[in-house]
Amino acid sequence: MSNDPSARPGTLYGIGTGPGDPELITLKAARLIGECPVVAHFCRRGGAGQARRISEAHLKADQEELPLVYPITTELPHGSPEYRERIEAFFDESAERLAEHLAAGRDVAVLNEGDPFFYGSFMHAYLRLKDRFPTEVVPGVPSPLAAAAQLPKPLTMRDDVLTVIPGTLPEAELRAALSGADAVVIMKVGSHRDRIVALLEELGRSEEAWYVAKASMADEAVMPLAEAPAKAPYFSLIVLPGRGVRADER
Amino acid sequence: MSNDPSARPGTLYGIGTGPGDPELITLKAARLIGECPVVAHFCRRGGAGQARRISEAHLKADQEELPLVYPITTELPHGSPEYRERIEAFFDESAERLAEHLAAGRDVAVLNEGDPFFYGSFMHAYLRLKDRFPTEVVPGVPSPLAAAAQLPKPLTMRDDVLTVIPGTLPEAELRAALSGADAVVIMKVGSHRDRIVALLEELGRSEEAWYVAKASMADEAVMPLAEAPAKAPYFSLIVLPGRGVRADER
Repeated sequence: MSNDPSARPGTLYGIGTGPGDPELITLKAARLIGECPVVAHFCRRGGAGQARRISEAHLKADQEELPLVYPITTELPHGSPEYRERIEAFFDESAERLAEHLAAGRDVAVLNEGDPFFYGSFMHAYLRLKDRFPTEVVPGVPSPLAAAAQLPKPLTMRDDVLTVIPGTLPEAELRAALSGADAVVIMKVGSHRDRIVALLEELGRSEEAWYVAKASMADEAVMPLAEAPAKAPYFSLIVLPGRGVRADER
Repeated sequence: MSNDPSARPGTLYGIGTGPGDPELITLKAARLIGECPVVAHFCRRGGAGQARRISEAHLKADQEELPLVYPITTELPHGSPEYRERIEAFFDESAERLAEHLAAGRDVAVLNEGDPFFYGSFMHAYLRLKDRFPTEVVPGVPSPLAAAAQLPKPLTMRDDVLTVIPGTLPEAELRAALSGADAVVIMKVGSHRDRIVALLEELGRSEEAWYVAKASMADEAVMPLAEAPAKAPYFSLIVLPGRGVRADER
């Protein structure tokens, strides 16, 4: 626990905690969460976040917990330059808080729901610190595979191509990504639900589509897209399993 | 262990064992592997296969192991009707061997490297048995995320679209899937290595590409595609991390 700058620096671990069910964490993630002297996670004010909840059973009493709490930005238009600036400054400060521990030789585990390198919040710390400290990414089960596990058909088989699309994309890019796609997962559906549904209907693919919210959690919801609720949470997914046709039989 | 047909049937579990490192198995997979009275896996003659090796520590002495050994088909042209017929007959017989246990009320765990619904061999059993027996899929860490964890850049961030492509696709479909793609994972590279490299060069994307073989295993190989060996194993991947640009900043 020395601040001696000649000490060997700590390692920055990006820990994939999996999609939500605490039993879908890997043995490696569980071990490292228990071993690192410092455990950090990004979260909203007033809530510890999913990754922290998933990891709970593996935390030890003598670890230092470092919640990195997003600033309140409700007064700024989402996506405005001022909003971006505030958020980037928050990620800069967060990285420096992690860097203090790493420089003092302490390993830091950053908890990350799903997988750290698959749309993970870990990237904000990683991109700022990767050239200064040793890093290791522990992959996790991503939410699309937890969602697909609940469907009556494999997500991909044989020569299926899988396209994973953020629902936040503007209309033209969403359309381009969907056109000619085979198996599809649309992430971060949330407030984009209606336009995504309309687009899938227009492309004649809405009947193959499933709606999955909170995959693998106790309050998971799985249903054909046609039956999906009018309001979708941010972390809900739309999944279209592939047709599983071999390329030479199409 | 009764053969009473009125008994409650067993559950068919598709168990994702993760990409190769035995520590990247989930707690749930490890538990179910130890609990099911019958543990099956598809494998080649003379080798138990990766999924069995990954699961070894969780197997118990009193379990019945059921290796489902692929038939030798070297005398048949790969992909010929005779070859397909032989393989399909093997999957039919394998499903019946699993069905006997399920009908007798015994739960069966089918081990599946990576994730069962993501190009997994489990699908051959699943599609044949899903309407006859209760099933449950336990998702696992897929090899593309284990490969991406070794790269110096997140696979996907912000508004990246991810396209996962079987390297076995014919030229035109491979080209269509790659055109306009952002983050890319090409699976099952193997003997298709040279034409995939040529195509990435033609599309001006070969310099972003990484070659990863045996992700997360002891003999893992990770390098820029330009340095990749001339012969690639079947389970090697080519990975192009996304650029991580927000849609409104492109």
